[in-house]
Amino acid sequence: MNDFKKYFPFYENTVDLVYFDTSATSLKVNQVISAELDYMIKNGTNPHAIDYKKGYEGLQIIEETRELLKQYISASRKEEIVFTSGTTHSINLLAKGLEKIFNESDEILVTELEHSANLLPWIAIANKTKAKVHKLTLNDDFTIDIDSLKKLVNENTKLVTFASVSNTVGSKNNIKLITKVIKKINPNTLVHVDAAQSIGHMRIDVKDLNIDFMSWSAHKMYGPFGVGCLYGKYELLDSLEPLFYGGGMSLKIEQNLVDYTLTSLPEKLEAGTPNISGIVGYKAAIEFVNKIGIDTIEKHELELKKYFIDKIQEKNLNHLIEFYNLHNNAPIVLFNVKGVNPQDITNYLDEKFNIMVRGGANCARRIEGVINTKIAIRASFGINNNKAEIDKFVEALTTVDNFLDALF
Amino acid sequence: MNDFKKYFPFYENTVDLVYFDTSATSLKVNQVISAELDYMIKNGTNPHAIDYKKGYEGLQIIEETRELLKQYISASRKEEIVFTSGTTHSINLLAKGLEKIFNESDEILVTELEHSANLLPWIAIANKTKAKVHKLTLNDDFTIDIDSLKKLVNENTKLVTFASVSNTVGSKNNIKLITKVIKKINPNTLVHVDAAQSIGHMRIDVKDLNIDFMSWSAHKMYGPFGVGCLYGKYELLDSLEPLFYGGGMSLKIEQNLVDYTLTSLPEKLEAGTPNISGIVGYKAAIEFVNKIGIDTIEKHELELKKYFIDKIQEKNLNHLIEFYNLHNNAPIVLFNVKGVNPQDITNYLDEKFNIMVRGGANCARRIEGVINTKIAIRASFGINNNKAEIDKFVEALTTVDNFLDALF
Repeated sequence: MNDFKKYFPFYENTVDLVYFDTSATSLKVNQVISAELDYMIKNGTNPHAIDYKKGYEGLQIIEETRELLKQYISASRKEEIVFTSGTTHSINLLAKGLEKIFNESDEILVTELEHSANLLPWIAIANKTKAKVHKLTLNDDFTIDIDSLKKLVNENTKLVTFASVSNTVGSKNNIKLITKVIKKINPNTLVHVDAAQSIGHMRIDVKDLNIDFMSWSAHKMYGPFGVGCLYGKYELLDSLEPLFYGGGMSLKIEQNLVDYTLTSLPEKLEAGTPNISGIVGYKAAIEFVNKIGIDTIEKHELELKKYFIDKIQEKNLNHLIEFYNLHNNAPIVLFNVKGVNPQDITNYLDEKFNIMVRGGANCARRIEGVINTKIAIRASFGINNNKAEIDKFVEALTTVDNFLDALF
Repeated sequence: MNDFKKYFPFYENTVDLVYFDTSATSLKVNQVISAELDYMIKNGTNPHAIDYKKGYEGLQIIEETRELLKQYISASRKEEIVFTSGTTHSINLLAKGLEKIFNESDEILVTELEHSANLLPWIAIANKTKAKVHKLTLNDDFTIDIDSLKKLVNENTKLVTFASVSNTVGSKNNIKLITKVIKKINPNTLVHVDAAQSIGHMRIDVKDLNIDFMSWSAHKMYGPFGVGCLYGKYELLDSLEPLFYGGGMSLKIEQNLVDYTLTSLPEKLEAGTPNISGIVGYKAAIEFVNKIGIDTIEKHELELKKYFIDKIQEKNLNHLIEFYNLHNNAPIVLFNVKGVNPQDITNYLDEKFNIMVRGGANCARRIEGVINTKIAIRASFGINNNKAEIDKFVEALTTVDNFLDALF
């Protein structure tokens, strides 16, 4: 197993911190940090300032990054990729951008597993337009059940939205099949995929999957905070009402202060000064992922998950711990220590073992409709992790029945 | 005159680049860059991940930054400050957040000088709600005319929105007087100030000014890209409909996928993973401004403007150049070389003299209603500039009649 730790300066400053929260954000790689640093030091100008070379340099980097992303997700045109501040921004841009097409007879299909960012924007828009939000049925492995999907999609289904990979139970949906089933019943039904948990972990080909929209964040694929993207098929993306109005997207405002002319895609949906240093870093992150290879990343992470499962079964921890998703093929494990609040355990693992995992609802507020609890502990693995860390983690888990002694 | 260049690493890599585009973005200072770098290297975790110390550290920095900002603008509570991705985001959050209160009898007052970011969002909301957008009358120095304001404000005036300092002609409005006049006629009229051009250049006390809302960007006060703020009086801010729905702002989503419970301010308006490295940098930027002193910054910049005016008058360039705003008390000069397209001149100044200035509408699309042209050249000064650069600039301007020879 390759050791990728050398790419992460985080480990230069620590001997024993174990980071198992890649689902929340990936640690930052050297070349991303240094690319941002370089831009801030040597340039730092506004990429809208194309009157001078330094400003134009920024604009070029934005367009190069867009081109890299186009290739990365196999979009048809780079103009199909709009930069946002993150997944949450992307999905809200999409939901509010579609507001005008929804009415009271319309139906939106979601899963109860969705992150709040892919649930609340749709509930808010449905409440406003009187459209209905319905739940998709899930299989035992928490993926979308195809037979029920066939029954739920109808002529009123305006949109189906779901996570490529769940941020809690790590269920991985068969996007291609789901889209095919939906489009066969109703070719006008829009399909949106929340790719926050998959963009940096597996290959995604939007053309092959035939999805209409996709959202993700840079910081979950080794890139910087404050940058995200919305992908959309050109005509559909072009039909969205902008969420932000402002500079860089208006060509003309008439004297009557009523009429105005907007630019074309992608600028039309990117009003305001871009997070240029973030985009510079994101470019370096995509280049990093391409260099390592997304298949190598996926293989490494799933190997860690498999190793974890083997170790857990070896230790036979079932009397202490309830695991919710060991069978799922994503580098995320979700569990609870029986009878103990998750936050007590995350605190214990952090304080006593320097192991960073999450506890709570992990922003999936309807997860109680899927598993038998509202809150759980999540550990998610990235290429920055290795088997020795899994060993340490499993060792720590064998001691959780003593956590009270250790903490107080 | 103090030389502040030492704070800007930009100048370590160049001997003769002259940056006169502080109105578009300020160059980045050392401590801002190193604070961001430090966070990315030593931490890099998600500040919502408060289950472990590293994550909690990020959250603490966010709250410390909010407290610093509260003090910086003299807000009543730190919860009155909401982090956004920039001014454009802030104003769109405000405009769409207020949508529900507008109706066809309502009036919104603006100036034709506004940046698109403080004009288009209001036009879009007015078009949607059938409210009317009316123009305020300006004085000869392009500030808001108080007598006309008194006539324009009435019981239907729902909102007055204007820039503290114009990003083109640099007119500086008397916010306190304007607000007083408005509130005396209609205490329910909301007052929003676009402080993008003033936040890093002069003292602003929102309590003393008695304004209801204010928007600004970090990158225009020596901070990083991708961070901005919306200030609002607590109850008013609390009444806004969120622009982003997502993680970190929802407490509960009911099984019916209709009802939900949101958190309180400020998180309620800050859905999604924050641009934590940006906020870390912003904290350092505020500390930098506080260290130098905002009054010192204002004095330095206005001294440069005065020096520029003196030099221009010395050279007697009026036959070549039309200046639009020499009389205004902000470090921004706007001009045109007679008979020449501004973009040709900005290109010439960049190529031949390494002087970076802007040409065009500078995102103020209705400026033609105020001065006799749609497009002009803007030079804006910051504390990174000195008198030698002004000398170089004025020398360059004396040669503009030869620009064609120089370029081709």
